[in-house]
Amino acid sequence: MADSCQLSHCYNPIRMSLKFQIEATSGSARAGRLLTPHGEIETPVFMPVGTVASVKGVPQDILEELGVQILLGNTYHLYLRPGVDTVRRMGGLHRFMAWPRAILTDSGGFQVFSLNELRKVSEEGVTFRSHLDGSSHFFSPERAMEIQIGLGADIIMAFDECTEFPADRTRTQASMEMTLRWAERSKKYFEEHKSEAPWAGSGHVGTGALGCPVGPSSRGFCADGSNPTGQKSGLRPEGQPRAAVPTWSEVVPTIVNQTQSLFGIVQGGMDRELRRESAERTVEIGFPGYAIGGLSVGEPRELTREIIESTLEHLPADKPRYVMGVGTPEEIVEYASLGVDMMDCVLPTRAARHGLLFTSEGKVSIKQARYAQDQGPLDANCACRVCQRYSRAYLRHLYASNEVLAQVLNTVHNLSFYLDTMRRVRHSIQLGETSRFLSSVRSRPKP
Amino acid sequence: MADSCQLSHCYNPIRMSLKFQIEATSGSARAGRLLTPHGEIETPVFMPVGTVASVKGVPQDILEELGVQILLGNTYHLYLRPGVDTVRRMGGLHRFMAWPRAILTDSGGFQVFSLNELRKVSEEGVTFRSHLDGSSHFFSPERAMEIQIGLGADIIMAFDECTEFPADRTRTQASMEMTLRWAERSKKYFEEHKSEAPWAGSGHVGTGALGCPVGPSSRGFCADGSNPTGQKSGLRPEGQPRAAVPTWSEVVPTIVNQTQSLFGIVQGGMDRELRRESAERTVEIGFPGYAIGGLSVGEPRELTREIIESTLEHLPADKPRYVMGVGTPEEIVEYASLGVDMMDCVLPTRAARHGLLFTSEGKVSIKQARYAQDQGPLDANCACRVCQRYSRAYLRHLYASNEVLAQVLNTVHNLSFYLDTMRRVRHSIQLGETSRFLSSVRSRPKP
Repeated sequence: MADSCQLSHCYNPIRMSLKFQIEATSGSARAGRLLTPHGEIETPVFMPVGTVASVKGVPQDILEELGVQILLGNTYHLYLRPGVDTVRRMGGLHRFMAWPRAILTDSGGFQVFSLNELRKVSEEGVTFRSHLDGSSHFFSPERAMEIQIGLGADIIMAFDECTEFPADRTRTQASMEMTLRWAERSKKYFEEHKSEAPWAGSGHVGTGALGCPVGPSSRGFCADGSNPTGQKSGLRPEGQPRAAVPTWSEVVPTIVNQTQSLFGIVQGGMDRELRRESAERTVEIGFPGYAIGGLSVGEPRELTREIIESTLEHLPADKPRYVMGVGTPEEIVEYASLGVDMMDCVLPTRAARHGLLFTSEGKVSIKQARYAQDQGPLDANCACRVCQRYSRAYLRHLYASNEVLAQVLNTVHNLSFYLDTMRRVRHSIQLGETSRFLSSVRSRPKP
Repeated sequence: MADSCQLSHCYNPIRMSLKFQIEATSGSARAGRLLTPHGEIETPVFMPVGTVASVKGVPQDILEELGVQILLGNTYHLYLRPGVDTVRRMGGLHRFMAWPRAILTDSGGFQVFSLNELRKVSEEGVTFRSHLDGSSHFFSPERAMEIQIGLGADIIMAFDECTEFPADRTRTQASMEMTLRWAERSKKYFEEHKSEAPWAGSGHVGTGALGCPVGPSSRGFCADGSNPTGQKSGLRPEGQPRAAVPTWSEVVPTIVNQTQSLFGIVQGGMDRELRRESAERTVEIGFPGYAIGGLSVGEPRELTREIIESTLEHLPADKPRYVMGVGTPEEIVEYASLGVDMMDCVLPTRAARHGLLFTSEGKVSIKQARYAQDQGPLDANCACRVCQRYSRAYLRHLYASNEVLAQVLNTVHNLSFYLDTMRRVRHSIQLGETSRFLSSVRSRPKP
């Protein structure tokens, strides 16, 4: 199917608001474009995690500058704080967090299942207690859809059960079956309510929160410190107060027929046969994109790779394929080479906060005393704003002194490294040199 | 003296590297320019505090964008971490923290005297214990100079005793006398070693850390995400690694005769007569600028103002006058109207971290539930990047969720507010309308 799509526009037949086009292939890898109600995403793409409507420590204009085209938000966290009602009243997540580009929300399933002692699962759904205050809550497929529709991400995820690892075949199959039933319920609710996103109908395709153009050809609002009126700094002229941030309808042309898109999730544990069955039956239900869930749950990395590779065979080539919660820089390159289009992971941002930095020469633990007087940049091959300006000595000092700026700069660098890695993967696919690029990544020093 | 300087260049006769020029006066207030080895400062100026070589949470390029022309570093903190030897080996504080514009360091006196139980004062100097690990250290006027020369700020401060409040006249006078003796020792050591700053002789006037122009007409390196080679993002072309951040000498033309400048500090507690004596005798010793220290130590604000006003009468009009450790937005306007040229305070940055934000409508405690669904900008009259992009609801959410971005954005706004306030003061002085501007500030709502 990929071949027939290579030179033509392969629009998604199910959801008009999500268009996926494969532009080039190299082996199993593909480079494509995903058009969402909030702009275009070049795939393969790495999605930084903005748990509670913020990529920890990084202002939105810097994310734009880094070339982030889509962010991931966590439904569980956003549901607890600030709450879906608040986000909906504020016009949805994009507007609430002033992020004009695309957003994907997970279903809350993974976080809820991570609560362990605090949850109770039934066919109907999951009862769980908040990690914040112990209060009791209930997520069902329908409720997870209702919440995600209220948050208003461009891509939302079916409510699934993330099967624990290890699990025997009986347990894995039962869990997979429930995920399939929940997928049907998710889709049914979604189809009936998909026009209810806070922004649905206002149609701000490719337009920034305040009327600035966004997308690959633009760095978007605030990237250069400007706003639509061209102001850069200084107080407003007196007598011209601004009562509120402009609403969507004030600043964007109306484009109709824009809705969210719902992706299905393949489960099936570490059993290739169950994964195949889960994939086939999820595809039968029919979604505009498919995720492989239930990985990175403690299994060996070689097994992760095997499951991804074998599951991909059973997913339609003309739909975006998303592997949830992976991985290291080497892994995301590997998975892209297998034909994965979308990935997300807290690793670059969480590691940054612990002083663990990814570079072209391998990992750097910036807290080490050996960097205390190291005048060199963090990564001599990196052109990010951190590597261009600051020395390892300064980054080490900030970390050792527990300065907040350490977290900000470390996160900016790690995200830049991940996004640059993905840009290079994409470029190598376009050149048909994926396998050569992959070997160069595999041969990176492991300090 | 100010009058005779108004239309001509009033160069400092003592230190060739610090030039102060008064351009306009309005009542007692003056607008001027201070030329340092690292660029020009428009006065009156507010100096943000970057305690340990970082304005907590704010990247240097954003400080440049905000128009920060001079930062304050704390000698006591920098001495403990990363240590003066490290900073000197890294080429001085500017290069270490990648800040190409001017820096002022305090003498360490105020912090050391704040240690209370952990210090012991003698004529020779102060023995104190580190707040970090309890280790014992000794600061004398000579040692404070040696450290500040090693750090390499453009303006450094004489080692003084900050008299506690309240203090009786005998104690205040004795303390003032010791500060005068320490001022002489500070000056003597400084004159003998002033050419030993890490950058002295390399003469990088007005040139950024990586060879980019800085100053009022330029936003400097990284403000637009570019570097001198025009790169914006992405990895370097392979085969062109960069071994280290370029050294000063690689990127800047050599301009000789650039040294640091040492300011004297007036003490004398809350006694106007002792303040007069301290001012006169400090001026007799002779410095290119004078600070009023020992304020903001617990005295009523009206007393602070009285002491500042009466002390200013005894300081030469053609030298910069610096009041240390003040104040609220209203106070800095007030003090500038009295003829103060330089001020610094942790208030905007520290308050920001506690969710206390300064606006044209008065203070806002962003943690309050009343802002949870407030779509308006923090300050409708502010054009800073925070007010232009984010809503009060989002800022409240970030603070309530303990997100690091709250600290970053709140600090950026508060600093922007302080710097804008000072720009407006300066403008009102140039227009000769200081008293009118002052009344408008005094009549601000106090929520």
